[in-house]
Amino acid sequence: MPLFSGISLNIPDTDKPRVVIIGGGFGGLYAAHNLDSSKFQIVLFDKRNYHTFQPLLYQVATAGLQADAIAGPLRTTFKKKKNFFFRLLRVQKIDPDEKLVFTSSGSLHYDYLIIANGCRSNFYGDEMMEKFSFPMKSIPDALNLRSQLMQTFEMAGLVKDPAKQRDLLSIVIVGGGPTGVETAGALSELRKHVLPKDYPDVDFSNMHIHLVQSGNFLLAGMAEKSCKRAYADLTKMGVEVILNSKVSSYDGYTATLTNGQTIATSTLIWSAGVKGDVIPGLKPEWIDHNKLVVDNHCKVVGSDGIFALGDIAILRTDKYPNGLPGVAQPAIQMGTYVGKNLCKIQNNEPLKDFKYFDKGSLATIGKGKAVCDLPNKKAFGGLLAWMIWAFVHITFLVSFKNRVKVFINWVWNYLTYDTGNRLIIRPYIRTNDRVAEKIVKDNEYSS
Amino acid sequence: MPLFSGISLNIPDTDKPRVVIIGGGFGGLYAAHNLDSSKFQIVLFDKRNYHTFQPLLYQVATAGLQADAIAGPLRTTFKKKKNFFFRLLRVQKIDPDEKLVFTSSGSLHYDYLIIANGCRSNFYGDEMMEKFSFPMKSIPDALNLRSQLMQTFEMAGLVKDPAKQRDLLSIVIVGGGPTGVETAGALSELRKHVLPKDYPDVDFSNMHIHLVQSGNFLLAGMAEKSCKRAYADLTKMGVEVILNSKVSSYDGYTATLTNGQTIATSTLIWSAGVKGDVIPGLKPEWIDHNKLVVDNHCKVVGSDGIFALGDIAILRTDKYPNGLPGVAQPAIQMGTYVGKNLCKIQNNEPLKDFKYFDKGSLATIGKGKAVCDLPNKKAFGGLLAWMIWAFVHITFLVSFKNRVKVFINWVWNYLTYDTGNRLIIRPYIRTNDRVAEKIVKDNEYSS
Repeated sequence: MPLFSGISLNIPDTDKPRVVIIGGGFGGLYAAHNLDSSKFQIVLFDKRNYHTFQPLLYQVATAGLQADAIAGPLRTTFKKKKNFFFRLLRVQKIDPDEKLVFTSSGSLHYDYLIIANGCRSNFYGDEMMEKFSFPMKSIPDALNLRSQLMQTFEMAGLVKDPAKQRDLLSIVIVGGGPTGVETAGALSELRKHVLPKDYPDVDFSNMHIHLVQSGNFLLAGMAEKSCKRAYADLTKMGVEVILNSKVSSYDGYTATLTNGQTIATSTLIWSAGVKGDVIPGLKPEWIDHNKLVVDNHCKVVGSDGIFALGDIAILRTDKYPNGLPGVAQPAIQMGTYVGKNLCKIQNNEPLKDFKYFDKGSLATIGKGKAVCDLPNKKAFGGLLAWMIWAFVHITFLVSFKNRVKVFINWVWNYLTYDTGNRLIIRPYIRTNDRVAEKIVKDNEYSS
Repeated sequence: MPLFSGISLNIPDTDKPRVVIIGGGFGGLYAAHNLDSSKFQIVLFDKRNYHTFQPLLYQVATAGLQADAIAGPLRTTFKKKKNFFFRLLRVQKIDPDEKLVFTSSGSLHYDYLIIANGCRSNFYGDEMMEKFSFPMKSIPDALNLRSQLMQTFEMAGLVKDPAKQRDLLSIVIVGGGPTGVETAGALSELRKHVLPKDYPDVDFSNMHIHLVQSGNFLLAGMAEKSCKRAYADLTKMGVEVILNSKVSSYDGYTATLTNGQTIATSTLIWSAGVKGDVIPGLKPEWIDHNKLVVDNHCKVVGSDGIFALGDIAILRTDKYPNGLPGVAQPAIQMGTYVGKNLCKIQNNEPLKDFKYFDKGSLATIGKGKAVCDLPNKKAFGGLLAWMIWAFVHITFLVSFKNRVKVFINWVWNYLTYDTGNRLIIRPYIRTNDRVAEKIVKDNEYSS
């Protein structure tokens, strides 16, 4: 008899209104923090038991940080919050008419629903790309990429032919937004400072880092000065930036670009786009471009008691006719706004409109190198920008322990250039690559 | 065309004698450290790219430490060592007549061979046990167990029936050696200090921790005073110690003991025994009880130029008629001895016999609770023993960075009782458990 029968959501009945939050990213986290436990029962659903600090995922992928430095268990985060219930599960469906959320462990009635489940990688229907490329949306994604990189370096040590070594070592990064730029910079620093010491038998001049961007600029959306500086810095660091081009196909071995170029690579990193992950059951008229259209109160337009936050929401304003940018700040501000407002809504008090406060944009390129756009669109770069970047990222990490871990790691890495997290703990095995798969199996280093 | 063709071991030819070391555990690590690079070419093979500090695996499993605090990349460890070559692979066969080592990436001639590939879990032929229990020999093992524990706690929150909650939460640890005792103690502290705060909806009085030991004493081999103290401390901490009994069968749901008792449990931890992992091709007459018989120079008796170290070697002495204990110190001392001696052997100089220096034994039970046997078999326990235990373990960690990480974690955990590594990053899915598997898949928290 299975041990796991008799499962229910096990949320106690309550006379308070129940708020169900879907997703423990920035939006859901700040909403839950700002909800008043004495007025509401708060239920948080997530498919992972931790919050991921996505802006630093690229450092986990490039072995600069250990995974748990940027992830915090959600239960621990809220252990002092009263009237709060976390459940690890995936939401399957929403019935907005009956106000029910359906999950793999049963259904639950809500009075208010906060949808903050974010986005997933968008491969625009390219199945080969989805199968063979490395996305960068989650901690398992980042660990898979790290494992792939380390295994590739090991394999390059077994290959004498420089052309083959080059094909093995070359990396293509698709998408020149912050993730692409930051990953390219981190890989370039690994190549220069860390890898040659670790792999004396590999010639890292054979490791080419290609960054492919569809538009005219890297970091599109930032001030032109920042875009240009990112391009100049990366180029100086030996990253081969290819503008105005896309990767039109990738078969696991060769990336073909729309400019006709082909690049042999076993590692293609996909940071080219995301799409909203709309849960089934919501009304089609609420959905636009895979996102939920919200009004100035972050309420899904036309719905009863449903709010949407962060990447899954589209809030059109005069300044942002296509919606707010898909970064942490809008999610944090929307979450805080909705969390604080529900009391007023419950009491039918008048509401102030949500106003997005642009705190500026930051992207780091390398040690002491970053670009910063201030809210007034003034831009600057270099060491000061990098220090601001580091300060802001440490500040927004969720727990004090995460902050300590990241800070110590950064100081260490800054002083030694030795990141030290280069362990292949769970080898990544690409399904199409029979030879690689066979080597891994023969070696049995998967345990 | 596959990227990974044309693979060879890529070890340069040399006019120096070549030493091949199999295994980067304590024995192989200390042998490589002590070999003179100016006199030998040193080649290290391991199936993992890191050294594992096995004595602290149980803290990784119980979420006290992150994995990379106790693992160090082997390439980084030896990056300053000249004439040293690391290769990530599994050795398939040895031909002692031709002095060849065969691997998945090609074969290599050796002048001296140091076999230090250690032991694996021994299930004594019980296939069900091997399939359903959680061993504790490697970092992936420890992470699987951690993931299983955290998932079980999550699931217990979904179950209202106290009997079912008890079945889910109960843990059986088989084997009362240091690993079993230390794991039981750590789980008991988690239950008391950490879990109730994280899982307010779970009644942890339903979590029973059973420690099953075949003999009369826990920590067999230590002084009787230490054995008794471990028993008394664990019992006081609420661990249900079952002496003079074995688990005779386990089907993934119920453990049946030789004393007739049955315990429903989804988590059975196997720390009951190991067996040597003898590589094919070695002469049968060299092998005894799955280990390689070595003489007082750690040389495999009857072989030409083959040495064996640590858990895979059996060195019988008057004091240890069944061989040295299977812990870190014999491996470290044998590795150091062989590494230093190869020069003398090469020059046909006379050798001193290897002498094992017993530095005593330590085991920790909980915060401020440990037992310590001094080399003279005097034993004591309590806070002082615990402080010595902590000091010794920090000292023998391989890298300075590992030491810093473990030290900071311990200070943190000591002060806060909050271990913080309770992330389910790669969910463990038990193959037999259709319901659990289905829940995990539905939830898609595997990504």
